[in-house]
Amino acid sequence: MSGNTIGTLFTVTTAGESHGPALVAIVDGCPPGLELSAADLQHDLDRRKPGTSRHTTQRQEPDEVEILTGVFEGRTTGCPIGLLIRNTDQKSKDYSAIKDTFRPAHADYTYHHKYGVRDYRGGGRSSARETAMRVAAGAIARKYLASQGITVRGYMSQLGPIEIPFKNWEAVHENAFFSADPGKVPELEAYMDQLRRDQNSVGARITVVAEGVPPGLGEPVFDRLDAELAYALMSINAVKGVEIGAGFASVAQLGTEHRDELTPEGFTSNNAGGVLGGISSGQPIVAHLALKPTSSITTPGRSIDVDGNAVEVITKGRHDPCVGIRATPIAEAMMAIVLLDHLLRHRGQNADVKVGTPVLGQL
Amino acid sequence: MSGNTIGTLFTVTTAGESHGPALVAIVDGCPPGLELSAADLQHDLDRRKPGTSRHTTQRQEPDEVEILTGVFEGRTTGCPIGLLIRNTDQKSKDYSAIKDTFRPAHADYTYHHKYGVRDYRGGGRSSARETAMRVAAGAIARKYLASQGITVRGYMSQLGPIEIPFKNWEAVHENAFFSADPGKVPELEAYMDQLRRDQNSVGARITVVAEGVPPGLGEPVFDRLDAELAYALMSINAVKGVEIGAGFASVAQLGTEHRDELTPEGFTSNNAGGVLGGISSGQPIVAHLALKPTSSITTPGRSIDVDGNAVEVITKGRHDPCVGIRATPIAEAMMAIVLLDHLLRHRGQNADVKVGTPVLGQL
Amino acid sequence: MSGNTIGTLFTVTTAGESHGPALVAIVDGCPPGLELSAADLQHDLDRRKPGTSRHTTQRQEPDEVEILTGVFEGRTTGCPIGLLIRNTDQKSKDYSAIKDTFRPAHADYTYHHKYGVRDYRGGGRSSARETAMRVAAGAIARKYLASQGITVRGYMSQLGPIEIPFKNWEAVHENAFFSADPGKVPELEAYMDQLRRDQNSVGARITVVAEGVPPGLGEPVFDRLDAELAYALMSINAVKGVEIGAGFASVAQLGTEHRDELTPEGFTSNNAGGVLGGISSGQPIVAHLALKPTSSITTPGRSIDVDGNAVEVITKGRHDPCVGIRATPIAEAMMAIVLLDHLLRHRGQNADVKVGTPVLGQL
Amino acid sequence: MSGNTIGTLFTVTTAGESHGPALVAIVDGCPPGLELSAADLQHDLDRRKPGTSRHTTQRQEPDEVEILTGVFEGRTTGCPIGLLIRNTDQKSKDYSAIKDTFRPAHADYTYHHKYGVRDYRGGGRSSARETAMRVAAGAIARKYLASQGITVRGYMSQLGPIEIPFKNWEAVHENAFFSADPGKVPELEAYMDQLRRDQNSVGARITVVAEGVPPGLGEPVFDRLDAELAYALMSINAVKGVEIGAGFASVAQLGTEHRDELTPEGFTSNNAGGVLGGISSGQPIVAHLALKPTSSITTPGRSIDVDGNAVEVITKGRHDPCVGIRATPIAEAMMAIVLLDHLLRHRGQNADVKVGTPVLGQL
Repeated sequence: MSGNTIGTLFTVTTAGESHGPALVAIVDGCPPGLELSAADLQHDLDRRKPGTSRHTTQRQEPDEVEILTGVFEGRTTGCPIGLLIRNTDQKSKDYSAIKDTFRPAHADYTYHHKYGVRDYRGGGRSSARETAMRVAAGAIARKYLASQGITVRGYMSQLGPIEIPFKNWEAVHENAFFSADPGKVPELEAYMDQLRRDQNSVGARITVVAEGVPPGLGEPVFDRLDAELAYALMSINAVKGVEIGAGFASVAQLGTEHRDELTPEGFTSNNAGGVLGGISSGQPIVAHLALKPTSSITTPGRSIDVDGNAVEVITKGRHDPCVGIRATPIAEAMMAIVLLDHLLRHRGQNADVKVGTPVLGQL
Repeated sequence: MSGNTIGTLFTVTTAGESHGPALVAIVDGCPPGLELSAADLQHDLDRRKPGTSRHTTQRQEPDEVEILTGVFEGRTTGCPIGLLIRNTDQKSKDYSAIKDTFRPAHADYTYHHKYGVRDYRGGGRSSARETAMRVAAGAIARKYLASQGITVRGYMSQLGPIEIPFKNWEAVHENAFFSADPGKVPELEAYMDQLRRDQNSVGARITVVAEGVPPGLGEPVFDRLDAELAYALMSINAVKGVEIGAGFASVAQLGTEHRDELTPEGFTSNNAGGVLGGISSGQPIVAHLALKPTSSITTPGRSIDVDGNAVEVITKGRHDPCVGIRATPIAEAMMAIVLLDHLLRHRGQNADVKVGTPVLGQL
Repeated sequence: MSGNTIGTLFTVTTAGESHGPALVAIVDGCPPGLELSAADLQHDLDRRKPGTSRHTTQRQEPDEVEILTGVFEGRTTGCPIGLLIRNTDQKSKDYSAIKDTFRPAHADYTYHHKYGVRDYRGGGRSSARETAMRVAAGAIARKYLASQGITVRGYMSQLGPIEIPFKNWEAVHENAFFSADPGKVPELEAYMDQLRRDQNSVGARITVVAEGVPPGLGEPVFDRLDAELAYALMSINAVKGVEIGAGFASVAQLGTEHRDELTPEGFTSNNAGGVLGGISSGQPIVAHLALKPTSSITTPGRSIDVDGNAVEVITKGRHDPCVGIRATPIAEAMMAIVLLDHLLRHRGQNADVKVGTPVLGQL
Repeated sequence: MSGNTIGTLFTVTTAGESHGPALVAIVDGCPPGLELSAADLQHDLDRRKPGTSRHTTQRQEPDEVEILTGVFEGRTTGCPIGLLIRNTDQKSKDYSAIKDTFRPAHADYTYHHKYGVRDYRGGGRSSARETAMRVAAGAIARKYLASQGITVRGYMSQLGPIEIPFKNWEAVHENAFFSADPGKVPELEAYMDQLRRDQNSVGARITVVAEGVPPGLGEPVFDRLDAELAYALMSINAVKGVEIGAGFASVAQLGTEHRDELTPEGFTSNNAGGVLGGISSGQPIVAHLALKPTSSITTPGRSIDVDGNAVEVITKGRHDPCVGIRATPIAEAMMAIVLLDHLLRHRGQNADVKVGTPVLGQL
């Protein structure tokens, strides 16, 4: 399959550039009969939307999504769902200066070599603007999963050097950082304010958790649930690392520490992050992702132009000083898309399976 | 696609269980005209093979691979290449005791719930034994990539608590740990000997590097090169985390630190790990993976049986005390498979592209 | 992959119902640098468009296509191309009477059983209206193919009982039937006028030909070029049969008749239809398809309702008395999509192949 | 996906050449818990096997299949099933004369141009020998389908000029031609004997029927059940045409003739061939395929060699004078593979659907 589609049975195909007329998506394979309206998608889109606090880009995009197909009388029909978001606040003049220059840490250089031509306005296809459609498609997946008792939620677990412990899910919705610890918010705000004064940017770590996932999702040996989550999460702009459960901490763990023992009451721990042998265990699915600092900063950097000459680059325009701040809804969307796809695949192959063993949660 | 196939144009499909008669693979889409013999595959298989040092499982498998199809008069024909490895040292009696028990941190519990039935002998399909075929298939990819000037090499960068710095590639072949620092080997040996006496296991970190990769490989926005590498590497047994370039260190980096500046002489650093916007930049592709400690240890652990009763489990049999030790050739194979697939995909779509800009390496 | 996507490297995903707000498509994998504007697509859309003669449905749809993504400064960028056509002449009141009834020979009964819910207005997703997007996508493929010297053209070769011999390509554009024989047009018009008076419909046979196709396109053994053409052409609404070259006439041919001999000047005949062993031979690719008569006719028919009761059905609304009349551009589009996909696949795998043998045309 | 794999959830990947060491297949996605042994596959393999009557090739191949993976204690595990058939009666000396020559109507010319190199022995990968693995894989699909009440059966409906009416299924197993009319067998034998004396070959028409298929299988709009059947059947060697239901006869039918009316007792006819809007209707699925005459005949024909020189070709070796004679089990296998894949896909997406309407059969 060409590269702008994800999934096997539940598939999402997206198109659209930062400064083109619109973003488009086709979501195929959604089960029929699900109540769905644009408002269901808008809720998540608004959580990702730019310009909602001083800590994100000041580009103003209402990100109003239109459902064009696949929904009839308020319910999904099982046919593909076409989505449209018009771009409204493109300021192309911001970008013409960098037409022939490769901004460091951006995709300018690689798109140039791959395609020969590129839409240089705001990064074109490589802009994180495309993630709006991931969120819209993910909202469909999340709604269906919710009907099956499965929830997918995320939070920011680290901003630059500041680790943010998990306190409670309610807090996440009450601050611009998706922090699950309300007490950390002042520190985060102060950090971001200083960063903006320094004309710099910083990375972040996001944690995503799915609860209520039944055991059995995931396919051996390549399409493991964790492998497909890694693919989906790493495909988000700026992500440089993905962990499942204990992740890189596993390296220094002993077998006796890492293994999650089972008791009749449940698993005693969750170093596995809810995946054993690539298949969901019924425990919460836990993934972490690392996002690099925003590449677009106004501190000058060295680069070259398309003729190979040395140039100095300052990336103007309106940018997020920490792309991680708006990444939580995107990560939730990607996890939901993968889970729904695997739920459908599992159902297809294993409809006959009857297993009596109790499904264990986590102690 | 069902879950045992990886790739779009260059595809690898595998089958086989730990204690069944054989492992099978079909490698499709290999360019024609490549000189290929079983000996080319055997070299990498021997590097992964069990029983070559006291630090790995004592199961003795010659892992002799037979090329059954797709090669004629010593060259690939462009038709699918069928591979066969007979299992020879299955000791099924070792495993019958765990038939109705779920070993902690293994796939027993999840396979049971997914399929209702499972081949409990040595983990069946979930055993790392299947990775032999990944290595065989990867050897084909590596040979073709080599003909294009692309090399893929890996080493162990951490064993449990011991970080292993990169010294030189030659060292990797001269010790059982794939350590790139010969001076670290005595410490690694001592650590492993103690671990075995403690009846425990430990995790590891592997680094894989591809050099000579041209800019342009990878597809927006889902099938990014880094996303597909994350998928391929996370699909390896026991892997719990994948990083590209700076990986999780990116979280605490500033934009001015992370960005790799370009000069007419080359990139000045490689925090990106050779991938910008999901597309190769011409720099070395660098990935790191975290492997959890071996789940099979003889220290007793709590678990349940298929009826939900509490039981105590001791995993006997012959096991690697650190699955990471043999993981380097597997990681190399998976990276090579992804790179070749993307090389073919890129060629297909972008055959017309002519770009004048010089291709930059790393300073 | 879910069912609304076709292709491997050059992929087309469509969405949209007869009476929903719009039709949507995402065309992925188009090579970069191709000059492309909406006008290029509009030409083919106008050829398929309803209401252009008294022999087709009187629904008035301008079928104006908007290119939303993937084209920058008049050229394709290699990124996915999003297309939008708004529906403008939906008369939903025409259809409410059949909400709970299954029209014979329509998809009402099967959609009902598959999905439980269905958009009953004008057939919803099962309406031939979706083929507008096939034509738009096909126009992109045809334009790229043209840049490689490959043309795809079709004509109606039979209307009901009237066989229509091929005379010349120019004639095809000069009549409402896509007849390649201008002398047959009066007979066709008289036949259709009578058919309309009889409140009946009739089938048709379409022939599609691709010229300039280089040898080598198509993959053994499942994704043969002819197999993928059969898939693509059979996927068109109302198609009940597909032939390549001599097709069903091959059944009664002797080996000495069927085989196309080769001489240094070229093939002496083309019973193969340009495909040998599933791979293009350099001869014209020739396919024929059979379209059933329109199911929507005003002559009453027996059916049942959703409760299983016997009912009588008259399909009112605006319909084509012969769906085959507008099928030629659709068939061309589908052949073009398949050929471009296979051109890209072939390039990807076989870029290294250098063959000296002259490519043979047809004598 | 590369070209040697068919299917989405139930996938079959094959490899192997006419005169190589073996044929290999991996069947992925088979539901777990199905009783399966090599004997189940052997039954169908024996029906396709060469050398069982004087009317087929005299090559002697026992076609003994070995199940190497995916079956444990006599049941499928849900993991991929690896199959192996060793070639035993390769007479490579028969073929060396045609090493540099393109046999008319064979794939020699096209493989040469696609790959540059080719295994010329017996046609290599393009030989119908690969269909043995289709039959083996199809036998797995048929066995699972049978457990769901679905049967797939075929017969020869025309041999050269001789139409063979359907009389009863029992007759099919009692003659070498898969004739459903025992009374026709002497005529068929006489025809074939004369054909062999004439050193010629002839085409055939095969009909395949699936009964017990529930309504709902097939996906809009590309992956329609009929479209995927067309793909699967056209992918069989020598097939030049595929029809569903009335097929090409639809061209001359009126709407009132073609449409299958519904009554509370069932459909009154089956021109649709069991597929409406690309989705199964619950009626029998009926497909017809046209096979061209065998290309390998001893009557000399004109051709060229790899340097473009005119040559005369006589295809010696052991060949079927009518490839259609052994094609019935292959066509059954391909239909079964497609049906099982769509059954799994349908289950995956539409598990929630509850429909009260009675399912209709055919009157």
